Amino acid sequence: MSIRIGIFGYGNLGRGVESAIAQNSDMELVAVFTRRDPDTVKLRTAGVAVVSADKVVEMADKIDVMIICGGSATDLPVQTPALAKSFNVVDSFDTHAKIPQHFENVDKAASEGGHIAMISVGWDPGMFSLNRLFGNAILPDGKDYTFWGKGVSQGHSDAIRRIEGVADGKQYTIPVEAALEAVRSGADPELSVREKHIRECFVVAKEGADKARIEKEIKEMPNYFADYDTTVHFITAEELKRDHSGIPHGGFVIRSGKTGFDLEHKHIIEYRLKLDSNPEFTSSVLVAYARAAYRMSREGMRGCKTVFDVPPAYLSPKTGAELRKELL
Amino acid sequence: MSIRIGIFGYGNLGRGVESAIAQNSDMELVAVFTRRDPDTVKLRTAGVAVVSADKVVEMADKIDVMIICGGSATDLPVQTPALAKSFNVVDSFDTHAKIPQHFENVDKAASEGGHIAMISVGWDPGMFSLNRLFGNAILPDGKDYTFWGKGVSQGHSDAIRRIEGVADGKQYTIPVEAALEAVRSGADPELSVREKHIRECFVVAKEGADKARIEKEIKEMPNYFADYDTTVHFITAEELKRDHSGIPHGGFVIRSGKTGFDLEHKHIIEYRLKLDSNPEFTSSVLVAYARAAYRMSREGMRGCKTVFDVPPAYLSPKTGAELRKELL
Repeated sequence: MSIRIGIFGYGNLGRGVESAIAQNSDMELVAVFTRRDPDTVKLRTAGVAVVSADKVVEMADKIDVMIICGGSATDLPVQTPALAKSFNVVDSFDTHAKIPQHFENVDKAASEGGHIAMISVGWDPGMFSLNRLFGNAILPDGKDYTFWGKGVSQGHSDAIRRIEGVADGKQYTIPVEAALEAVRSGADPELSVREKHIRECFVVAKEGADKARIEKEIKEMPNYFADYDTTVHFITAEELKRDHSGIPHGGFVIRSGKTGFDLEHKHIIEYRLKLDSNPEFTSSVLVAYARAAYRMSREGMRGCKTVFDVPPAYLSPKTGAELRKELL
Repeated sequence: MSIRIGIFGYGNLGRGVESAIAQNSDMELVAVFTRRDPDTVKLRTAGVAVVSADKVVEMADKIDVMIICGGSATDLPVQTPALAKSFNVVDSFDTHAKIPQHFENVDKAASEGGHIAMISVGWDPGMFSLNRLFGNAILPDGKDYTFWGKGVSQGHSDAIRRIEGVADGKQYTIPVEAALEAVRSGADPELSVREKHIRECFVVAKEGADKARIEKEIKEMPNYFADYDTTVHFITAEELKRDHSGIPHGGFVIRSGKTGFDLEHKHIIEYRLKLDSNPEFTSSVLVAYARAAYRMSREGMRGCKTVFDVPPAYLSPKTGAELRKELL
């Protein structure tokens, strides 16, 4: 018996979930739900229904876990509580500051509905969070460092594109190698925002636009760029398409800690991701946690959960005995 | 109310647990159990009882979790099942091939006794195992790589010391940097034993011993050294003590995987440990899992568990709400 999965929202993340399901033989994609006209949505997987989002509740007994692939700004705060009333759900809510509020809302809905709702699944929040937790639990005397990149920041790319005279653009967040090395050395440096990351922008200017002004506006933009060393490259639309159409990302979570009666021994725990496709990796994490949500629901658990609440064995299709033999 | 911890066995690992407990304010060391004459054992922590191992059962109602600090070869296969009848226990059993059998024995004893027994806790098995599991669950199409070092291998150091004419010696296992780089690049190399690690030996020869013969015997020793590029340095006892008395270790777990409908995107997940003190880090992991064992026991769970079965939140002294706010 396969785990029957629904996808709610069919953008980059939804397509990533679709392809990840194809890599997991214990799962089956049952339907994709969209707010668009279903006739206009072409899936990659043969024989899967595209259903209007309005009709989602009608499918409640056909889907074991719904993976919600909306955005964190406006979609998920509404969609996750609404769907958790009728489905086990997984989302990738990633507005860190609003997680406690989202948890409360979703927990209420999921508990009332008798479902499991797994929120903030992905890599940050998600795998990075897990590594922060493990690092803090194992090395209570220590410091946390998180670096992002090298990767495309959607928010910063959008900010560039809103500048007058910009036709298109892409921004890479890049960790400063010297800062990483200082952390790995155990020196426990205090790092400013500027010392941790640099920002590199590839910009296509509209014809006749004032490039010097665009560059200045980017570099002085508060919050987004002003606190960083930022470089701006003007390129053609063709170059942008050829060299910068991927969505790579990644980063580092490092715990630097001390043990011993006199704290005389240093330890470094480093977790690193290097991802060709940010949405496909996030989707792959979502699908593994959908398996866990299914199992936890079958065991009678209810309410909102995060990656912190999931026994790792629940993520794998293997049995406990197989895991102990092969991976422990 | 602190979690009341007992330590069974007071070698490097037991002392590491003692110092780790001092770093965790929700825990209290109640007693250390030893097979030696208790009067000969001096603890670092004031006011803690040293008790003969014979009398351990008498302390059953005074200890919430017993951390068993014996060796995997002969101690733990006997001690863990025996103690799991009367205590919640945690051990660091690390003979990978014998884990399934150990699990069965311990599960029977712990289930009968109504306790939680957490086995094979540490970094490998332990944190490395978790990272293998996460990597496999997230990226089902992929390859696993585990590298150890740079660090002291106790077994290989012992093997050197058994050679005639050797007064003392220490062996470092060192990952081959080029192999690591090839794996990180996503090339998915097939690596021979020799290509993954080199072995570096520091040997103190007895007076008049034939160094050429010792070096030859080391380099040709089957299983231990013959399959590796091994270097042998002869040094004085003073140099060994000055430069090689630490017990550093560490290593890398890397999952290299692909996603996308045509498996067109590569992802690298890398987990790295760099440890000044192998036993103190292992002890720190044991103590975090003792907290989890305590909580799982309080919730009524029973039987043998591994790191795969523990919801990560159970490792931290923080509440769920604190973890979501601070670390998610």
